[in-house]
Amino acid sequence: MYIFVINSGSSSIKYQLFRWPVEQPVCSGLLERIGLADATITHKVFTAEQEQVSQRSLPIPDHAAGLREVVRLLTDPEQGVLRDPQEVHVVGHRVVHGGEAFAATTLITPAVKAEIKRLFSLAPLHNPANYLGIEVAESLFPQARQVAVFDTAFHQTLPPKAFRYALPTSLYSEFGIRAYGFHGTSHQYVAAQAATYLGNPTAKIITIHLGNGCSMAAVLGGKSVDTSMGFGPLSGLVMGTRSGDLDPSVIFHLIQERGYEPVQVQTLLNKNSGMLGLTGFSDMRDITKALLAGDPAAELAYDLYAYRIQKYIGAYAAVLNGLDAVVFTAGVGENDARIRALVCRNLEFLGLHLGETRNEECTKELREINQAEARVKILVVPTNEELAIARQCAELLTA
Amino acid sequence: MYIFVINSGSSSIKYQLFRWPVEQPVCSGLLERIGLADATITHKVFTAEQEQVSQRSLPIPDHAAGLREVVRLLTDPEQGVLRDPQEVHVVGHRVVHGGEAFAATTLITPAVKAEIKRLFSLAPLHNPANYLGIEVAESLFPQARQVAVFDTAFHQTLPPKAFRYALPTSLYSEFGIRAYGFHGTSHQYVAAQAATYLGNPTAKIITIHLGNGCSMAAVLGGKSVDTSMGFGPLSGLVMGTRSGDLDPSVIFHLIQERGYEPVQVQTLLNKNSGMLGLTGFSDMRDITKALLAGDPAAELAYDLYAYRIQKYIGAYAAVLNGLDAVVFTAGVGENDARIRALVCRNLEFLGLHLGETRNEECTKELREINQAEARVKILVVPTNEELAIARQCAELLTA
Repeated sequence: MYIFVINSGSSSIKYQLFRWPVEQPVCSGLLERIGLADATITHKVFTAEQEQVSQRSLPIPDHAAGLREVVRLLTDPEQGVLRDPQEVHVVGHRVVHGGEAFAATTLITPAVKAEIKRLFSLAPLHNPANYLGIEVAESLFPQARQVAVFDTAFHQTLPPKAFRYALPTSLYSEFGIRAYGFHGTSHQYVAAQAATYLGNPTAKIITIHLGNGCSMAAVLGGKSVDTSMGFGPLSGLVMGTRSGDLDPSVIFHLIQERGYEPVQVQTLLNKNSGMLGLTGFSDMRDITKALLAGDPAAELAYDLYAYRIQKYIGAYAAVLNGLDAVVFTAGVGENDARIRALVCRNLEFLGLHLGETRNEECTKELREINQAEARVKILVVPTNEELAIARQCAELLTA
Repeated sequence: MYIFVINSGSSSIKYQLFRWPVEQPVCSGLLERIGLADATITHKVFTAEQEQVSQRSLPIPDHAAGLREVVRLLTDPEQGVLRDPQEVHVVGHRVVHGGEAFAATTLITPAVKAEIKRLFSLAPLHNPANYLGIEVAESLFPQARQVAVFDTAFHQTLPPKAFRYALPTSLYSEFGIRAYGFHGTSHQYVAAQAATYLGNPTAKIITIHLGNGCSMAAVLGGKSVDTSMGFGPLSGLVMGTRSGDLDPSVIFHLIQERGYEPVQVQTLLNKNSGMLGLTGFSDMRDITKALLAGDPAAELAYDLYAYRIQKYIGAYAAVLNGLDAVVFTAGVGENDARIRALVCRNLEFLGLHLGETRNEECTKELREINQAEARVKILVVPTNEELAIARQCAELLTA
């Protein structure tokens, strides 16, 4: 059978098709700039020997037109991989916000859709796009089971002392203001891989997801007990364009003393801060180049980025009362040896001893990069959110 | 000689008079509700045997009138402690915000006053009141040296990776937006006491100041290297009425989805959050009563309060790459054994082992409350900001 994974954004759709139960990726793709005349679709077909990439620019007025185009590609008589969309038995949807209603992957029913809609106010940028993706997929794959995999679900095991803010209780009970955490699918996936590798299902693990968005989780016995993103995906680590943790006083100062509108501050913190604000670049590879060229702003940005992670490692070691492994994952975490070295430096008291040579190696597999005799393992675990979503769908339907 | 210490707030003045160099407190007092018809003045005179307290209600139109009344009390022919205000050789002023200009205690000159005034926009609630206190003291004690002791000065040793936010560089260079930290006089004082007690001037110490405001500092060799308050006195720990750390997303949600004005959110976070927001009480003694009566909100509030401290202990142990001592100070830190026990619980991996019996003892002296054989010392060190200010003044004028 086939499982089709959809990650629907406000103006983009990512997708991947798996043959199951062999977990074989058949094709994947990305639609960008939906709604514009020059939208693009990048479609990759995987065969045993190679990866065939095709890219086209075309007008895609909306998500429905976009997914119809994807279905056309999947079932193309010459280059297609399916004879009929009916061969897709399961469509797995990444849904950003599951609120407190969803602590696990869930079969989509009218009631589930209503709840996802009710959560629009908590995730105004993401849940409406996810919802739209579900509605379009329901019409294009009417025979398939539609499944929602929530970015927040893994963190629903946080205890109240970790998820509540020190705000009036009514803001929690009436408005749902609490920490939800995100990147749950990735944290869960790499923590499980690490626990298997360690042969220790009750391990104390800190997972560090460093992509465009960045977050960390403290994982005890496979359950998330704390995480660095909170009510929205803004707090915690320094990110590509997001500030991460910030004294709220700064926001009021900008509004009251510097004439900013609230929405300008919001845009500033989400789109123009983080590594971009500090260096002028949001991509770590550009910042590395600037660093190597001797740019002091790039050096400071690296320092800040790594220092924030170090503080969370310390905090989460305290939360776990010890530490068995630290796991780096996602684009930067898997590929930037310099960041990993900066993060692991001067944490010997926690048992972290990086193997410098191992750290420089670059593979696509789970690998151990601590010194051979070190007590705490430092692991690089490639994340794969699409595969993780497909697995969660398969597990739900088998259970 | 005499040193007179003034802590001038927006509608209050705290003061204390010391005989020097014996460091003997002669009298102290508090003016409250300045500007109102029913202002009060509480004045204490210390003698070898006892403490004489007098309290009066009277109209005090402004700070000048208030300080004139204090001088009248000090020089009262019957109950006064001075024959003449000229016996005061030094007036030490607590000034909240010294920005980046003041990394140490400073003799007040016209240039210093101009800089304190320039910093009004960074501390709009505090610096104007401090400034007013200086001007009034200059006219009432014209022969005395006026000295400024800044709440931020001790934290000026923070490295950029600790004091910068991941915001566009111009916000730092043009607006001075960075972490400054507060409670510096207290952190410096108790860290120095602890280092002396340990007989280790290079000790790795975490100081935990828990009063109405709460903050922590990582202190290495007597220098602050990180602290939990930032640009203003709002971030970090859960406080009596302040939220401490909060995902900035919450602020934008309240403004955009819930119709709050920015200034309402600011008031909410500063005046109606923290322990007050969670329990309805801002005083720890009331919350303890509620806890003992079985109130689940009080239990959650205690959990949150202690958990936040635990995470900062972990983070600062990481910053210091180890730990020699943890120091509790200020009202709650010195007196609330329950909080100390909650904070030190489940941190054995860091070397923290609380001595339960020692923790319950209550004295006014520096005391060690860890188990006798523990590697990391847990200390209670009573803070004394007025004495610390007087000492800093004396040191400055001796140097």
